[in-house]
This record gives sequence, structure tokens and C-alpha cells, in this order.
Amino acid sequence: MGANRAVQGYLDGVRVLDLTQFEAGPSCTEALAWLGAEVVKVENPQGGDPGRSSFRGKPGQDSWYFLLFNANKKSLSIDLKSPKGLALVKDLARRADVLVENFAPGAIERLGLGYEAVRELNPGIVYAQVKGFGAGSPFERGLAFDMIAQAAGGLMSITGEPDGPPLKPGATLGDTGTGMLLAISILGALYRRKTTGEGERLELAMQDAILQYIRVAFAATATTGQAAQRNGSKLLSGKTAPSGVYPCKPGGPNDYVYVYTSRANPAHWRRLLEVIGRADLIGDPRFETVTARAEHEAEVDAIIADWTSRHEKVEAMRLLSAVGVPAGAVFDTLELQNDPDFERRGIMRVMQHPACGDFKMPAWPVRHGGSTLPVAPAPLLGEHNEAVLSDWLGLSAGEVAKLRADGVI
Amino acid sequence: MGANRAVQGYLDGVRVLDLTQFEAGPSCTEALAWLGAEVVKVENPQGGDPGRSSFRGKPGQDSWYFLLFNANKKSLSIDLKSPKGLALVKDLARRADVLVENFAPGAIERLGLGYEAVRELNPGIVYAQVKGFGAGSPFERGLAFDMIAQAAGGLMSITGEPDGPPLKPGATLGDTGTGMLLAISILGALYRRKTTGEGERLELAMQDAILQYIRVAFAATATTGQAAQRNGSKLLSGKTAPSGVYPCKPGGPNDYVYVYTSRANPAHWRRLLEVIGRADLIGDPRFETVTARAEHEAEVDAIIADWTSRHEKVEAMRLLSAVGVPAGAVFDTLELQNDPDFERRGIMRVMQHPACGDFKMPAWPVRHGGSTLPVAPAPLLGEHNEAVLSDWLGLSAGEVAKLRADGVI
Repeated sequence: MGANRAVQGYLDGVRVLDLTQFEAGPSCTEALAWLGAEVVKVENPQGGDPGRSSFRGKPGQDSWYFLLFNANKKSLSIDLKSPKGLALVKDLARRADVLVENFAPGAIERLGLGYEAVRELNPGIVYAQVKGFGAGSPFERGLAFDMIAQAAGGLMSITGEPDGPPLKPGATLGDTGTGMLLAISILGALYRRKTTGEGERLELAMQDAILQYIRVAFAATATTGQAAQRNGSKLLSGKTAPSGVYPCKPGGPNDYVYVYTSRANPAHWRRLLEVIGRADLIGDPRFETVTARAEHEAEVDAIIADWTSRHEKVEAMRLLSAVGVPAGAVFDTLELQNDPDFERRGIMRVMQHPACGDFKMPAWPVRHGGSTLPVAPAPLLGEHNEAVLSDWLGLSAGEVAKLRADGVI
Repeated sequence: MGANRAVQGYLDGVRVLDLTQFEAGPSCTEALAWLGAEVVKVENPQGGDPGRSSFRGKPGQDSWYFLLFNANKKSLSIDLKSPKGLALVKDLARRADVLVENFAPGAIERLGLGYEAVRELNPGIVYAQVKGFGAGSPFERGLAFDMIAQAAGGLMSITGEPDGPPLKPGATLGDTGTGMLLAISILGALYRRKTTGEGERLELAMQDAILQYIRVAFAATATTGQAAQRNGSKLLSGKTAPSGVYPCKPGGPNDYVYVYTSRANPAHWRRLLEVIGRADLIGDPRFETVTARAEHEAEVDAIIADWTSRHEKVEAMRLLSAVGVPAGAVFDTLELQNDPDFERRGIMRVMQHPACGDFKMPAWPVRHGGSTLPVAPAPLLGEHNEAVLSDWLGLSAGEVAKLRADGVI
């Protein structure tokens, strides 16, 4: 049962011992928490997950960053470097179904909580690890952060303008992208375990995870024999016109609309010409086929930009979308945050946090049975010490008080 | 059991009726297939999944794109518009554990295979759908492709140079990013179903899925009250120096190394100065703190670029990484494709395809029990007609021959 959850969860009864911090690990265990697993985040009593103070809003408060990646979890503060603390965590590991960690290379083994040690305590555990680089890689011991993985995993090489340097995409694929793939493997292992009782060791490197998300670029490389190129806002593989962002009124930094006409459906181009008032060009041999439009890309772009620049982006998107032309306004994060549509549909949900107040945030975006899943607040540091030590280990209030007095929790 | 799989899978016995095409749906069902589910891809006998001919390498062969997103699946060719074909698919739906579809809005209902119709046939089914925009969104009926979702989901607004237009990241997050999130929800629903027998309806919009991957930008927006900005290769939130790509020898388009020193660990900066031969700057007040380095960002960048430009990117990464400075060479897709390290570690695997030959491709990147999961070839169109119609529906060879003669399969 997730913290404070009234509804039935999909992973009811699944206990996750969460030794993760920052984002790659926390995004993974948070996905399990959205689905109803009981995720107990073990944190250093001195400040906890460093994500609590990353990009902090107000002094003394947990950061929005932390809240976003730790919804629906419980927090247990334990000093892992004290013998009693370590013994507690080992006891918890005996009772856990899943353990997830993303410490720096070698750290979990130095703590005495490496796979072999934990498997001895609990042969049926699903033990999942995130590292920057894979076991056996020449960079196996290297430190990684999201952007290091995005560079080394090939993603930056295909992001940017054709004549500009490699850029970092705004998405944190090295972190959250990794977390999502690991969650899939954990869920697969849990499914088998439900029948067989078997545990499993799972390992995912952030560099390797990136490859999963850029496979279209590998298709391009297989086709051309060349490295995939940066191509601005246009497609990586094969020239298609129109495809790209077109400027809109009133010309702000995100006043653009993406317009595309599928290679597979010639009707898109004709619909586009009609809606922009250029039905006169239907049948024009310069534009009638995919090949012809690719050859006249600059003219195609000018024709479309002439129309988009006379419209605001949302209006342009509405007009195009309504007649079956694929179109997307370039929304910025403030527009998305403030658009009531997302809250109405449950894609944004309000986390009611006891210290930080109400926080409207992107929820797990999948609708289950017609609505998205409820959100409980990210935990305060050590908020669930008593509850978890009692539920999982049967400790009495007096025993917990002694652990606190001894500085263990 | 996945096609031709000898090893035990995690999802053994799970039958997935796969009505997907292109990438968002196929990447989702492929994740289930990697884990051992029996994924039966239902395709139009006339050409099948249009992804088979997208960016095609050789005429008449399936594209690399198709191979990448359909490993380990089976193919059943059925004409869904013929009454007999539709009846067959309904029979298959009765026996499926999961159904996944990503047709254009309204199409599955027009086929007579909408959620209500299928639930009547099989109340325990997990029925999962991908659309471009969510139910209830003003753009609900709009067509979407990967880049439309990347625009409308906020990702393009935070990708690019600060003074340039929004760009499309090279990763296909609108497609594969969506597929991964839907796979997580499907696996959660399957886990519950194993105990309760309950089915579930799951719906994910590509626009909404993007939000999951850009939550750091929402943290920035919550902190500043402003839309998150494009920032080239640097971090979105809070100025940190160094953070970015630095040029390397010999100056090609991807000859860069990403260098970062963590705000949380002051040792990174000192280690960096030592390895680049600038130990003289240790203790220099211009650079000693995170704040000071942010104020002197241009000088920091010049100091590092002076060193990186005298090294090749892999050498720079090795030297920095070895002493505990986070660093990542900007590898391109050809370098990654040809690096034997990835094949040795099982991150790249060779698909032995009966028509396309051997194809080295990124495998599911998670190591399970020390190795990645095996790959079986993406199916030829209709390759498993006999096998599936016999296994799932008990049809005889004669009955299958009649269906073929009647043009149904």
C-alpha cells in the first residue's frame, strides 16, 4: 500500500527498499509507488537524499525537484554507517520484495549491501542497480550524471543545428529515461516471482539506456552507413517537407507550431493547402509528391511560414489539427503548468504537502480505468520511521525511541 | 513464450494481441516481448505495419526501423475489414491477456474493437491505447507523430540554443518514451490481474507522456515562476560551471567531451584542475565555490577548453573519468554501432534475420542475472499465421488454408 493511499493499488503488498537518490533511481521507484507498491526510501538522517536540497525553492523546505520524484513514498532515516543502522537495513532487506540503488560505483558493496550479501539474506529479492556505465565497460568506474549519459549514449550527437555543436535535450533521459526502463525490468521480474518465488539481479547503465530512445538514429545509420546527423527541428531520416517548426504571432521565443505531412498519406498535404488558403497549389508538380516537396523544401517552408506567421500558435494548431493535418504548438513549461486542461484531465495533480503547501505537478500520465492515479505527498525526512520499523520489523515504540536516542535513525 | 525463445521468460504465458504500428505502440509491445510475453502482431496482409516500409533500406525488405521495434514478436496477417478477419481477431481477443493499439483517433471503434466491445468478449483483458492527445483534450481528435508530441509536450521549448529556435531532440520520446510508460502500466495491471483476474483499460497520450521526461524543467518553473529556457548544452536549472560540451581534437562535428563538476562535491573541481595541469588554480577565490565559478563561467570554460582541445574526446573522457570527474565523450551513432564493447557486454545484439541478414542492434539494455536478454528476429509478414491460429484458436491446417484462399489472412 502506498503511503496514505485509499484506493487499491496494482502492486499492493509489494515492498520496495529504496536506496536511491537524485533522479535515475527515484524516478524508477516512484513509478512503482504510483502503481501502489510500498516504497520505503532509506535516507541519511543528516539531510537525506541530496535531491531534497537540489535547486531548492525556500530554505529548509524540500525542493520541488524532490517532490516531483518522490511522490507516494515513505521515508525512513537511517545512518547506514552505524553498525546498528546497517543491521536494521539488513533486516528490512530480508522482508523486501525489491531493492533499488543508484549509488556511485562500488559504494553499495562498501556498505556491505552488495548483491551477494543481500541475496544471502533474501534469495527471492529483486535487486536492481543503476550505474553510469555498464559492468565491463572501460568507463565502469566513471561517475555519471544525466548529461554525461546523454553525451556518451549518442543523444547529444543528434541534437542541435546541422552546423552547430551537439546540444543537450531538455529531457533528462539519462536519469528518468533510465528509471523507466529499469522499472519495466523490475515489473517483469516481479511477475515471474509471483509464481516461482525467484529473485533476480538487474543492472542498467545510464549510457546504455540512452540507446533505447535513439533507435531511429540507429536505423538511419544502418541505412546510410554514416553517423546520424543533427537536423534542427527536422526529421533525422529522409527529407520530408514540411517538417519543422514554423514561426507564429507574436514572435516570442516559443511562438512556433510544428507542422508535418506524412509520407504515407498524401491527403495531409492537400488538406494543409486548403486550410492555409493555397488550394491553388493542389496539383502543382513542384509539390505534389513527397520527392517533389523535398526538392522544393525552401519554397514549401516559405509558403507555410507565410500563413503561420499570421496566426498565434494555438490558433494555428487548432485550425490544422481540426482538418487532419498533424500539428503541434511549441508549448513552454509555464503554459503547460497553467493550462487548466491538464488538471481537469488528471495529467497534472495537486500534491498537498504538509510543509511546502499545494504543488501542482505532472502525475503519472497513464489513465487507468478512465482516470490517472492519485498522488500522496513526497515524505518528510524520517516521516515514516515508526510506521515502517513497526510494520516491517515489529519494533515497539520504545525500541524506536532508543534507536532515535542512539542517533541510528 | 516469445518466438523461438529457448530461455525462460519473465512473462511466460502472457499473450499480447498487438494492433500497433510505427513506433509508440510497437516499442511498448516489444518491451513485453523482450521479457518473454508472446506478442502477436496483427497486420494488414497488404504490406503490414507501414513501419516495414519506412526508411526502407532495400526494396522488398523490411526496414531496419521495423526490425528495431519488432524483435521477438510473431506476425499474423489478417484483413480486419473482412467479416471473417474481424471475427478471427475477436476470437483472439477472447484468449489474449493484453491488447495494445495505437491507431488514429476513432479507428479502433470503427473496426468494432473498441474497449466496450472487447471487454464484453473478455472482461479480464488489459486493454491499452496510445493516442496523440488525451481524451477530453481540445486536440483529442488531432493526429500526432513523435515530433508533434515533442512540440506540444513542452520538450522542444527547452531544447536548443538560448537565442535560437526550439529544436527537436534526436530521441523519439513522443514514440518510444510513450511506449515505455505504457509498458509500465500494463505490467502493473498484469501483476494485479495474476491475483484478481481483473482487467483494466489503460490510455496514454503522447503529449502527456512527454511531461514525465521533462519534470526537471517543471521544477525550474516552480522555482522561478517562469517558463524553463533553452540552454544549449548547459543545465536548465541553476548556473553551474563547468557544465557543457568542450571541443576536442581533431575538431569534427562530434569531437566534444561533456565536463561537469557537481555542486554537491567540491572535490570534483579540484580533481579536474589537477588532471588538466592547472593545480595552480586550486584555492583561487575566482573558482573555489560553485557561486564563484558561476560568476566566472567564461574563464572556467576557457581553462577547460584549452585542455580539451589538445586531446581527443575518448582520451579526455578516460583521463577525467579515471580520477573521478564526471565526463562523457559525445559519441555518434556510428561510433556506438561499431564499438565492440557494446556487443561484448550484450548491449548490442545481432538479430539473425532470414531475409535481411545479420543486423547488430541495441538490445533491451537491462542486464538480467548478469546478461541481457536474447533476441529473436522481427517476424516476416504473416510468418506465424499457422502457428498462432493453431495455438490460440485450435484451427486445423485445412481451416488455415481456407482462410488464406479466401483472402482473409
